[in-house]
Amino acid sequence: MSDYPVIGKRLPFLEAIPKGAGETRFTNDLSLPGMLHARTLRSPFPHARILKIDTSRARALPGVEAVITAEDTIGRKYGYWPPGVKWDQWSTVVEDRYPLARDRVRFAGEELAAVAATDEDTAEEALGLIDVEYEHLPAVFDPEEALMAGAPAIHNGQDNTCAHVIMRAGDADAGLAQADYVREDRFTFASINHASIEPHSALAYYDPTGNLTVWTATQMIGCSRAVLSHLLGVPEDRIRYIVPAVGGAFGGKSGVFAYEFSAALLSMKIGKPVKITYSREEVFTSTIRRYNLVIRLKTGFKRDGSITAVRCRVVAEAGAYVGLGTPPLVNGAIFLTAPYRVPSLDYEGRKVYTNLPVCGPMRGPGLPQTRYAVETQLDSAARELGLDPSEIRRRNALQPGERTVLKWDITSCGLEECLQQAQSAIPNDHAGSGLACSSFMSGYDYPARHSNPGSVSIGADGTVTIQTIACDFGQGAETGMRQIVAEEMGVPVEQVRVRSGDSSLFPNQWWSFSDSASTGRAMIEASSQARRQLLEVVAEELEAKVDDLECRGGRIYVKGSSERGITFADAARKSFDRRTRAAWGEARFCARDELRRTGQRGPFLACSFAAQAAKVDVDRETGLVDVKRMVNAYDCGRAINPNMVEGTLQGGSAMGLSHALLEEVVWKDGQIMNPSFLDYRLATSLDTPSVETILVETVDPAGPYGAKEVGQGSLQAAAPAVGNAVFASIGVPITDLPITPEKVLKAIEAAAGSVPRP
Amino acid sequence: MSDYPVIGKRLPFLEAIPKGAGETRFTNDLSLPGMLHARTLRSPFPHARILKIDTSRARALPGVEAVITAEDTIGRKYGYWPPGVKWDQWSTVVEDRYPLARDRVRFAGEELAAVAATDEDTAEEALGLIDVEYEHLPAVFDPEEALMAGAPAIHNGQDNTCAHVIMRAGDADAGLAQADYVREDRFTFASINHASIEPHSALAYYDPTGNLTVWTATQMIGCSRAVLSHLLGVPEDRIRYIVPAVGGAFGGKSGVFAYEFSAALLSMKIGKPVKITYSREEVFTSTIRRYNLVIRLKTGFKRDGSITAVRCRVVAEAGAYVGLGTPPLVNGAIFLTAPYRVPSLDYEGRKVYTNLPVCGPMRGPGLPQTRYAVETQLDSAARELGLDPSEIRRRNALQPGERTVLKWDITSCGLEECLQQAQSAIPNDHAGSGLACSSFMSGYDYPARHSNPGSVSIGADGTVTIQTIACDFGQGAETGMRQIVAEEMGVPVEQVRVRSGDSSLFPNQWWSFSDSASTGRAMIEASSQARRQLLEVVAEELEAKVDDLECRGGRIYVKGSSERGITFADAARKSFDRRTRAAWGEARFCARDELRRTGQRGPFLACSFAAQAAKVDVDRETGLVDVKRMVNAYDCGRAINPNMVEGTLQGGSAMGLSHALLEEVVWKDGQIMNPSFLDYRLATSLDTPSVETILVETVDPAGPYGAKEVGQGSLQAAAPAVGNAVFASIGVPITDLPITPEKVLKAIEAAAGSVPRP
Repeated sequence: MSDYPVIGKRLPFLEAIPKGAGETRFTNDLSLPGMLHARTLRSPFPHARILKIDTSRARALPGVEAVITAEDTIGRKYGYWPPGVKWDQWSTVVEDRYPLARDRVRFAGEELAAVAATDEDTAEEALGLIDVEYEHLPAVFDPEEALMAGAPAIHNGQDNTCAHVIMRAGDADAGLAQADYVREDRFTFASINHASIEPHSALAYYDPTGNLTVWTATQMIGCSRAVLSHLLGVPEDRIRYIVPAVGGAFGGKSGVFAYEFSAALLSMKIGKPVKITYSREEVFTSTIRRYNLVIRLKTGFKRDGSITAVRCRVVAEAGAYVGLGTPPLVNGAIFLTAPYRVPSLDYEGRKVYTNLPVCGPMRGPGLPQTRYAVETQLDSAARELGLDPSEIRRRNALQPGERTVLKWDITSCGLEECLQQAQSAIPNDHAGSGLACSSFMSGYDYPARHSNPGSVSIGADGTVTIQTIACDFGQGAETGMRQIVAEEMGVPVEQVRVRSGDSSLFPNQWWSFSDSASTGRAMIEASSQARRQLLEVVAEELEAKVDDLECRGGRIYVKGSSERGITFADAARKSFDRRTRAAWGEARFCARDELRRTGQRGPFLACSFAAQAAKVDVDRETGLVDVKRMVNAYDCGRAINPNMVEGTLQGGSAMGLSHALLEEVVWKDGQIMNPSFLDYRLATSLDTPSVETILVETVDPAGPYGAKEVGQGSLQAAAPAVGNAVFASIGVPITDLPITPEKVLKAIEAAAGSVPRP
Repeated sequence: MSDYPVIGKRLPFLEAIPKGAGETRFTNDLSLPGMLHARTLRSPFPHARILKIDTSRARALPGVEAVITAEDTIGRKYGYWPPGVKWDQWSTVVEDRYPLARDRVRFAGEELAAVAATDEDTAEEALGLIDVEYEHLPAVFDPEEALMAGAPAIHNGQDNTCAHVIMRAGDADAGLAQADYVREDRFTFASINHASIEPHSALAYYDPTGNLTVWTATQMIGCSRAVLSHLLGVPEDRIRYIVPAVGGAFGGKSGVFAYEFSAALLSMKIGKPVKITYSREEVFTSTIRRYNLVIRLKTGFKRDGSITAVRCRVVAEAGAYVGLGTPPLVNGAIFLTAPYRVPSLDYEGRKVYTNLPVCGPMRGPGLPQTRYAVETQLDSAARELGLDPSEIRRRNALQPGERTVLKWDITSCGLEECLQQAQSAIPNDHAGSGLACSSFMSGYDYPARHSNPGSVSIGADGTVTIQTIACDFGQGAETGMRQIVAEEMGVPVEQVRVRSGDSSLFPNQWWSFSDSASTGRAMIEASSQARRQLLEVVAEELEAKVDDLECRGGRIYVKGSSERGITFADAARKSFDRRTRAAWGEARFCARDELRRTGQRGPFLACSFAAQAAKVDVDRETGLVDVKRMVNAYDCGRAINPNMVEGTLQGGSAMGLSHALLEEVVWKDGQIMNPSFLDYRLATSLDTPSVETILVETVDPAGPYGAKEVGQGSLQAAAPAVGNAVFASIGVPITDLPITPEKVLKAIEAAAGSVPRP
C-alpha cells in the first residue's frame, strides 16, 4: 500500500538468518578463560524458617572455589524495578526479596546459596554438602485462601495482600441497574510458563579494575543494571550488561534474577568469570510464570447487546514476592474498557502472596486472562440475547475518534474491518466456529522520561549505524529499525547496521523496553538530525538549500532535478572530512511528552486492534479439541514489513492456542509436578493449523510511518477465539483454562444433565 | 583570597593518597584469568627492506599461543589522530604508519611481530626464533641532512618533509628594517624522553560476544578507540578503553601504540586476555620522545629593548613517522607572539622524517624549545643593549586587554606582577641569577565540537557523582573537579565521587584531552542542571522560588533565612522519589563556541603567565652547574586548590631544570646508547633545590571561578631561567640543550679565547 522504497516492503527477517544457520551464540554458549561454573542451592520446602546454613563441607570439596549465602551479601532487598521506583499510585510493596534467602524461604525453589567450581558436576556435588536446618512453617498456595483470616502470613507484619488497585469510572451501579440483562461469571486460569527455548543463564566477570560485566539475555538492560548495582553496592557506572542473544523471552526474562546476582557476586569474590545456566527444572521453579488470576466479571447489557457497565473483581496471585507489582491489575482493568465501549467501570483487584514461585509479566501482564473472560462472557451473553457473536461485538466496538470511559482517545481503529474480515474468513456456523477481539497499547507512557533512546550515525564510508537500547527478543526489532532508518536515509537496508544489547551504548539509561512506536519515532528523529548534517555539506557542494534536497536510491539530489546530486557515500565522506567525525543524531522518544504536545489523552499513543476466529472439531467421545483453522485479522497501523507482521500474527495465534488447550503448571503441595518439556505440554506444529493472517493497515498519526504495535497484541484474542469455538461446538463455555479433554467431557456431561464419569 | 567554602581551599591532593599508600594498580599490575603475555619483535636496523619473515619456528615453541605480523592485520595505516582527521590547514600526511611493519622498517626498534605465550620468557624466547631477512637501506638521522638533496627518501614518492607551516602577521621585513639592533641565533636541543615511571603497558581482551576491552594508561581514550577501531576493523562501539591509573604521561602516552594494537589483535586471534608491558629500553626505542627542533631565531629590537619583528625558521624532526603532525610547529609559532608583544611575525617550519624513533608531544609540543630560544636571545640582546633582563622583559610584556599580532585577545594577565615577584625573590646579581617568562594556553579551541563532556548526578543518598572523560594523569584533575562540584552543590568534597578513565562513560566521544578551564566549565554547567532539578523539588517543599534557594554547608535553604531549609541529603532522596532517578546534568564545553558567544578572539580562552628565576653556582673547573634556588611565580587565574598549584609549579620547575642540565638521548648510527634510567640522566631530588612558588591570582572571566591552566605552563620558563643563570655566570649563552659540563667548559674557554681542551 505504501509508495515508500523500503517501508512496507516484504524484506526478509534478517535476525532469523544467523539463528536459522545455528550461528547465534547465546549466553550459555560463551566461555571465558578461567571461567567457573556455578549451581544454586534451593529450598525444597515451600515455607520454612532457616535455622542454620553450614557451607564448610561444600567449601572443602576439591574444585570448589567459592560458596555464597545471604551472609556474603550486603543485606539489601530488591524488587522488579530499580530501587525506590514506584510504578504507579497503587504501588506500595516494591522491594521484598533477598537475592539469596535470609532467615526464611517462601517457596520451594527459592535460592539459598550458590557454589562456583571448576565444572558444573563439582558445583552440583557441593550443593549436596551444604547443610541447612529448617523449621517448617504452614504454607498457603491458593490466592483466595491466602486472603482469608487465619491464613499464614507470608511476609511479616502485613496480611498477604501486596497490591490493591481500585479503578472506577462512570456510574457502574446505575449502569447495571439500567441493564436489560446482567451476567456474572468467574474465570480461572492455570499457571503457565513462558517456555522460552533458551533457559536463563548469566555469565559475570568482575575485572581487576572494579568493572563488572554481565552477559545475560535480559529484556531490561538498564533497569537490571540499576537493581544489580543496588544489590552489590557496585556503582551503576561500573556495571555493563551485554545481551549476547535472546532465545525467547515473552516477559520471562525481565527483572533481575538470583542467577545473575550470584554469578556476579561469586566473580567479585574470586576474580574469575562465573557462569550459571539454569536447568529447565530451575526455569520452572525459580524464574517467573504467568499470573494466575481469579476474575469475577459482571456485565450489564441492553437487549441489543450494548454494554451498560462492567464490574470486575480480581484476585491475582503474586507468588512468594511482589515482583512486577500492580501492572497485571492495572493493565487488566484498563483493557476492560477496550476494544469495546464500556460506559462505566467498577474495578477492584488484589495481588496476593502465596507460597509458590513468583509471577511475572507474560505478553501483557493480566491482559490475556482479562481478554478470555470478556470474550467468553460476551458469547454467553450473545447466546442469551439471541445475537450473533459478531453482532454483539460490532455493537460495542470502539470507533476512531471516540474517548473511552477512562478518558483516552482512540485515534486510528480498524476493529470493525478486522471483525468483518475474520468473520468472512470463518463464518459463524453455530458449531465449532469462534470469534474474539482484542486491542493492545502502542507507545507506552512510562513514568520516567527516559524512554527509548536511539542514535543514528553515518560513517565515512556511508555505513549507517543504529545504536539502540531496544533489543531484539525475536520479534524482528532490528529489521524494523533498519527499514525505518534506511527509508529515512534513502539507502538499502543492507547499508544499515544495528548495535544494541549493551548498556554501555546508553550508559545512563534505566528503561530498556522497546516498542515499535516509540523506538521507531526515536529512530526517525535521530535519522533526521544525522541526515541534516550530511545535507548541510551537500547543500554547500550543490549550491542548494538543505530543504530542497532529497535522499533516495543511495543518492542525495535536488528535488525535481535528480541529476544535480551526489551519492550518499560521497556525501558521507565529505561530511566526515569537514566535521572530522561521523554525522550523528541522537533522540529519545517519550510518549508522555508527545501526548502533552498533541493534547491527545491516554496512557499510550495508540491502540492496535484485532479480531481472531477459530474453527475447531471437538471429539465428544474423548474431549479432544482439534483446531482446524485460525484467522488473525490485525490492525497494526502501517505494516513496516508485512512478512514480519504476518510471522508475528502466526506466532501469537499459535501461542494462544497452546495457552487455550494445553499449557498448565501442575502443583502439589507447593511443588511443581511437571517442570520439564516432557511433562509440560506445549502446542507443537502438529497441534497448530497454518494460521491465516489479514492485515488491516490503518495509518496512525502518532506511529512511525503510521505503524502500531503487533507483538504482544497478536496473542490476546487467540485463546478466547479457540475457547469460543469450543463453546459453540459443545454449547457450554469453559471458564477455566486450559481447555483439557477432561473439562470438555465434564462440560458436555453437565450440559446433558448426566452424571460426570467416575 | 576567596570567600568560597571549597574553592581556593588548601585541600589535600586526594589522588595522591592511594598512590602514596601503594594501593594504586597500574596496567601491569592487572592479571586476568587465562591471561597470556606478549613480547614484540623489533627491527635492529634503522632502515631496511623486509624480504621475509618466517614465524614457523616461533609458532612451534611450546607455550606460544599466537604470533602476529603485518600479514595478520587488515593492512591499514594510522596516525596520531582518528582516521581522516586533519588537525589544521597545514596537515597533509596524517596516516603513514603500519601498526606492524610491512615491507620496510624505518627506525631501529620498529615493530615487526608479536608473540603471545603463557609467560614472558617463552614469548621472549620465541622472538629469537622468528627469522627475518632484511635488505639494508641508507639511513639519515639528522633532520637538516634529511632535507638535503640526495638524502635517502624515508617514505616513498615524496621528499622527507612531512609537514610545512608558514605563519605571517604584520610586516616583518619592515620591522627588521626599523630595528636598532637585530640579532640572530641558532638553537638546538637534545632528544629527550618523557621518562614516566610507569612503562607503557596494555592488557586487551576480546570477549566471545565480539567486544574488545583495552586496559591501558592512555591520555586519549576516545581518539585511541577510534584509531584502534580503524586498525582492527572492529566498530568503535565494540571497543572499550579503561584507564586503570596513569603513572606519568606528559604527552608520552598519547596516540595509539603497537603494544595496544598487538595485545588486541592477539586476543582477537586466541580469545584470551593478552598483556604487553614494555621494558624501559622499549619505552625509549619504540614509544615517543620530544621533538628535536633546530630553531633559527632573528629578532629586531629598538634601542629601548622593544621588539620590532620576529623571523623564525624551524626544522623539527619527526622521526620515522609523522605522528602528531603540525602542532609542534604551529604552537611553537604562536608562542613566539606571547608573552611578549611582537608587532610582526614571519615563521616557517618544516617537520622532517629521519630514521629515528617517532617524536611526540611533551608538555606543549614545540613550546619549551621555543621558550628557551626566545628567553636566551632576550638576555643576549639585553646585554648588547645595556638593559637589565627584567627591564627588557617588562618593556615587551603583554598587558591585559591587548590583542596580539595573531589577533587574539589577552584577557587576564598577571605577567608584570609575576616578573616583579620573581625578580624580587632572586634579584639580578649579574653573576648566576637568571630570569625567564612564559605563557601557555588555557581552554583549547579543538577542531571538533565535542570537547570536554562531563556529567554530574546526585544519588538518592546525596552522593554526587562526576562522570568525566578527563582523566587524572597525576596533575590532580580529580581533586580539582571535586572541589568545583562540591562548591556548586554546597557539600563537602568527600561527598563527591569521580568516575573517569572509561570510554563507556561517554561512548560517542572522540576527544579526551582535559584542561582545567574547559573541564571545569563543563562541570559547573552540569552541576547547575542537576542542582536545578533538586531545587525544583525543594522549592515546592518550602513553597519558595527556585532562584531564592541557596546550597551551602550541606543544606538547601531560602536565601537570607537559613532556618527555612532541608538537608542536601533529604533533598536528594525527595528528588529521587519524585523523579524515580538521580538528578542529572550533562554538559560539554567547547572553547570555540564560547569564543563565538563572547566575541573574544583567539585560539584559546585565556593564557596563563609566569616568570621563573634561578640562582646557580657554576664550577669553572669542572663545568658543573649547581642550581641553588628556583622561583616559579605564576598567574594561574584563581587557584582552585593552592596546595596542588604549588605542587604543580614545583614539579614543572624541577623537570625544566632536568631538561636544562641533564636529559639527553644519546644516539649512534640510529641506535640509542642510553635507553635505561642508569644511563639516561634525570634530575633527582638531590639535584633540585626546593622550588619557591608565588601565586599571582588574576581572575579570568572565562575560567571556572576564574581559574586558568597551570599544568603544562609551569615547565616552560624553567629551563631558560636556569640557562640564563648559567649565561649570567659565565658570560656566554649556551644554545644547545642540555647544558652539560663539557659545553660549559667549552663556552668558558671560547669566551676566554683559549683553545678548547683536547
